[in-house]
Amino acid sequence: MSMGNGDYKYPAAGVECAHRVAVPPPQPFTKSLKTSLKETFFPDDPLQQFKNQPASKIFRLGLQYLFPILEWGPRYSFQFLKADLISGISIASLAIPYGIANQPPILGLYSSFVPPLVYAMMGSSRDLAVGTVGVGSLLMASMLGNEVKANEHPQTYLHLAFLATFFAGVFQASLGLLRLGFVVDFLSHGTKVGFMGGAATVVCLQQLKGVLGLDHFTHGTGIVSVMRSVFTQTHQWRWESGVMGCCFLFFLMRTKYFSKRRPKFFWVSAMGPLTSVIIGSLVVYLTRADRLGVQVIGNLKKGLNPPSLSELPFGSPYLWTAIKTGIVTGIISAAEGMAVGRSFAMFKNYPIDGNKEMIAFGMMNIAGSCTSCCLTTGLFSRSEVNFNAGCKTALSNIVMAMAVMITLLFLTPLLHYTPIAVLSSISIAAMLGLIDYDAAIHLWKVDKFDFIVCMTAYIGVGFGSVEIGLVQAVAISLLRMLLFVARPRTSVLGNIPDSKIYRSVDQYPAASTVPGFLILEIDAPICFTNAGYLRERILRWIYEEEDKLKAAGESSFQYVIVAMGAVSNIDTSGISMLEEVKKSMERRELKLVLANPGGEVMKKMNKSKFIGVLGQEWIYLTVGEAVGACNFMLHTSHPKAMADDSSMV
Amino acid sequence: MSMGNGDYKYPAAGVECAHRVAVPPPQPFTKSLKTSLKETFFPDDPLQQFKNQPASKIFRLGLQYLFPILEWGPRYSFQFLKADLISGISIASLAIPYGIANQPPILGLYSSFVPPLVYAMMGSSRDLAVGTVGVGSLLMASMLGNEVKANEHPQTYLHLAFLATFFAGVFQASLGLLRLGFVVDFLSHGTKVGFMGGAATVVCLQQLKGVLGLDHFTHGTGIVSVMRSVFTQTHQWRWESGVMGCCFLFFLMRTKYFSKRRPKFFWVSAMGPLTSVIIGSLVVYLTRADRLGVQVIGNLKKGLNPPSLSELPFGSPYLWTAIKTGIVTGIISAAEGMAVGRSFAMFKNYPIDGNKEMIAFGMMNIAGSCTSCCLTTGLFSRSEVNFNAGCKTALSNIVMAMAVMITLLFLTPLLHYTPIAVLSSISIAAMLGLIDYDAAIHLWKVDKFDFIVCMTAYIGVGFGSVEIGLVQAVAISLLRMLLFVARPRTSVLGNIPDSKIYRSVDQYPAASTVPGFLILEIDAPICFTNAGYLRERILRWIYEEEDKLKAAGESSFQYVIVAMGAVSNIDTSGISMLEEVKKSMERRELKLVLANPGGEVMKKMNKSKFIGVLGQEWIYLTVGEAVGACNFMLHTSHPKAMADDSSMV
Repeated sequence: MSMGNGDYKYPAAGVECAHRVAVPPPQPFTKSLKTSLKETFFPDDPLQQFKNQPASKIFRLGLQYLFPILEWGPRYSFQFLKADLISGISIASLAIPYGIANQPPILGLYSSFVPPLVYAMMGSSRDLAVGTVGVGSLLMASMLGNEVKANEHPQTYLHLAFLATFFAGVFQASLGLLRLGFVVDFLSHGTKVGFMGGAATVVCLQQLKGVLGLDHFTHGTGIVSVMRSVFTQTHQWRWESGVMGCCFLFFLMRTKYFSKRRPKFFWVSAMGPLTSVIIGSLVVYLTRADRLGVQVIGNLKKGLNPPSLSELPFGSPYLWTAIKTGIVTGIISAAEGMAVGRSFAMFKNYPIDGNKEMIAFGMMNIAGSCTSCCLTTGLFSRSEVNFNAGCKTALSNIVMAMAVMITLLFLTPLLHYTPIAVLSSISIAAMLGLIDYDAAIHLWKVDKFDFIVCMTAYIGVGFGSVEIGLVQAVAISLLRMLLFVARPRTSVLGNIPDSKIYRSVDQYPAASTVPGFLILEIDAPICFTNAGYLRERILRWIYEEEDKLKAAGESSFQYVIVAMGAVSNIDTSGISMLEEVKKSMERRELKLVLANPGGEVMKKMNKSKFIGVLGQEWIYLTVGEAVGACNFMLHTSHPKAMADDSSMV
Repeated sequence: MSMGNGDYKYPAAGVECAHRVAVPPPQPFTKSLKTSLKETFFPDDPLQQFKNQPASKIFRLGLQYLFPILEWGPRYSFQFLKADLISGISIASLAIPYGIANQPPILGLYSSFVPPLVYAMMGSSRDLAVGTVGVGSLLMASMLGNEVKANEHPQTYLHLAFLATFFAGVFQASLGLLRLGFVVDFLSHGTKVGFMGGAATVVCLQQLKGVLGLDHFTHGTGIVSVMRSVFTQTHQWRWESGVMGCCFLFFLMRTKYFSKRRPKFFWVSAMGPLTSVIIGSLVVYLTRADRLGVQVIGNLKKGLNPPSLSELPFGSPYLWTAIKTGIVTGIISAAEGMAVGRSFAMFKNYPIDGNKEMIAFGMMNIAGSCTSCCLTTGLFSRSEVNFNAGCKTALSNIVMAMAVMITLLFLTPLLHYTPIAVLSSISIAAMLGLIDYDAAIHLWKVDKFDFIVCMTAYIGVGFGSVEIGLVQAVAISLLRMLLFVARPRTSVLGNIPDSKIYRSVDQYPAASTVPGFLILEIDAPICFTNAGYLRERILRWIYEEEDKLKAAGESSFQYVIVAMGAVSNIDTSGISMLEEVKKSMERRELKLVLANPGGEVMKKMNKSKFIGVLGQEWIYLTVGEAVGACNFMLHTSHPKAMADDSSMV
């Protein structure tokens, strides 16, 4: 269907025809609502596979959707088993030392048993390795610690932590089921880098307790309180722990550096923590250093995870705190886990459904909270080892869980003499990896505002509290977006020589303004947040350009063309703004012309009758056509203007 | 400076030259920061007049800026005085009846004395008339009433209300001084219509207490509790009050209707309230109806405003509630006042500085809180009467204040017999005017989502509380904007026949897709909120279009052109997204081409080295040039593609 002559406005010979700007064909409200809902909640169309299938197959596909293990399980091969065994053992060698580096140590081992099993059944990523979130415990300590101190009421605190983990899991699963997983996208890159960096810094400094062998330590989660606690107890520092801690820290940093330089030897840094635990235990055992005051783990209870469902204190007076903590930690850990899953899926080129992952994380944490586990998610460093070791499916997590099970059932006595200082240095080495200063420098170079957001989060977490840092960073990110919509860019367009292309004179200094015209471009949807600003800005452009032309002794313009290609939507406030601007212009004997309005804008202008007010003849498909048509009118109907004109297109 | 040959990419004869897309000349960070700050806080350039002036003149201009009366005062003429006297008397005839319709009555008169005087000195609008905010008292009652019940502790409640007014004034003045007046723009049209409508409905229904002569009434501010209070006391209804109230309500509605039909007779509806008071007082006086149970105002204290600064309970346990109430009522009343000022300024074509008005409103309320006044702002109905009566300057407010002063000093005994029923019917008539169902219907037609916001606010205020209604409406408005950025529109572009113009195939059904190309347009800045969604959406467009072409038996495309004219900005997440999309496309042997990236986008892509990754040769000024250049490459370097081609441009 070609555009017939009725679609052209100026069929006169010698003038380039201007096309008619159409109002899009009307769509029933229900259809556009359905499309909007589909784009918002189902952008990746996950239910496509269910179309046109018999009921039994839909049931089977549905089960496979919830439990991907039913999909890749039947296709499993011996090749895969070999690869997954190796990678499973590799990540287990990380899981055990990092597990006992938790507080209390046994929880870390529990958390590497049940949650990975759940993830292997329900998760979509083939490379993700599950573990406890280092900064998660900081978050919990910070938020729960306002109500219950961990050392004064250890049992209460523990049960509250399980309760918070439960709510985190419920929240994550709900977001996934309601297809609201996209809310974790509302954390900008700067927010994540700054927040994780700040939390990692605090956790690092808190490990000084273990490295220096201190008995009493602050509960504060700020850098200042931690440093004060360290430096007011210099007489309590234990040199034995300190020396051991520093040696192993040095060792671990060297192995990391080595593996970074030679990626083939990734297993060197992966073996670092377990090696440190073994060597450290041997040193303490042989020198009986635990009798000399070096702190060791001591007795670790043998046996698998005890159930904790009955101990979840739903009737606690701190229920609301636990819910809040669960929501915050749930979002942070889900964001991290989804980022990990996505980056490996992108690299290996397989699809991953973010909402399905959220459900998996949620169920993992719900199951974990009922089996004495802390908050868990996918960890980048562990998944990287998993990937490098050649994992093929999520079975690597099952292998890791089996290794941890064997440890829990039989090997915990071997961990008796593990020095706390070694575990602290393992934690420090891990946390230092989370302080991504490369990313911060990149932000400074590319996007200074996001760098400010990053620093705000870092300083807020480091010197205030985790909630303050997170809230500040999220608030500033969202404020920036709101400000961006509230103060959209406007620019003057000029003609690129020897063409009908009009671009911003700021970006293209060669573009020259057209005599008789002021061409403005608005770079955002026109809505209630920016209608008032745009009205004043457009009028100010007019005043300023008129003054410039007067000062240069040139004649002023008669037409103001507003290029609306970037105005994707308009609301009633925006249309009122256009009406007011038109009236203001008419008082100054200027004509308002619109160029390239989009579909939604034309629809709204049509429904509010603004097209009738402005006149369909003053709306053009491109700026070039608007200039051409207005020049045509100037030449044919304004003899005075002809006398003024010097060189027109 | 014309674009030389170095700016063209394809100087080969026979092929239209493609222009080079430039990275804008670099600006120092401080300069771009200064420009951003200027656009955000000083869009209307109010300090322009101060440039290049001697110090003494700057001082004088500064005083005139804060006190506009020093500017229009010296230029005052007798003509103005005549006009302002008439308009001042007109609005005084509204101020007195509306003033005594307040609770308690004397406060309304106080509030029409001091605040208008302050506004006349500091305000910029020539037409704005100041008065107490009808829905403001509802807001205060709702928010303060959670803590202190007005009838149980009237003095405490009153002092808290003054304190809240003080904080409202401080908040307004601060916003104005910090140039943050634009925050009131964050209330969408639908929010304001729904909120005011809901509040007006509740106030209307609350007036039934006065109309039916009830002694006891609910303190609830919801429609349900008010109606229950009315209908459980049917035996207490006083028929005399009811009849009187209904008669005068009918009279007032008729005068309003008459004036609406014949705008020349605006004074008819303006005289309505005062006439009702006079007639109602006479009727009660002559029939001694007050002894028959008809409630009257009774004794009104003579004399001007007593100072209340010393009674502001800064040490109250309810300080935080007063601050919160002050902030909320401050924003709502400032939004209303600024809208009034702007609409008349736009009509009469004089400039008005929103932040200066905020300072004036703030000082007005601070002064008012120290002189026993309630919250005041510019009222639309009263300003309309002011305007119709021909006011020339803000002196009309001074005239009104003088008339109220005379009333306070001498005429309060005359108001003794004013029936409460008459005052209630005056309030009802005023409130009915605030329920703007025309605006709601217009919203339904033009912008259904804003209509939903409107209804949410209305139902929230009417059936919940004012805070619930306001918070819901603001939250939904902002959520809509966030969702809009998080789910931007993307569309497939096609070629308008016989042109090099490419537009959305949804808006222009005549536009046809170009064989060998998939042309997509993204309609929003690419940032962290939508990068993930856009990546999935672009890939889904590719899959869907490939499937369509396969099903139709046509050859697939090799180039994916992304038109970025509407992408006004991009951040690090957006650039990562483009890199990932490029890699995904390369795996499918597709080429990513960018068309028309704006200045900011080019800057960020340049700083993050993405231009090097993509290749400068794959960035074009327009979609047409991209298509032309890619076709050229297809024909010259892909003989297989030549065999496939049927008709190229």
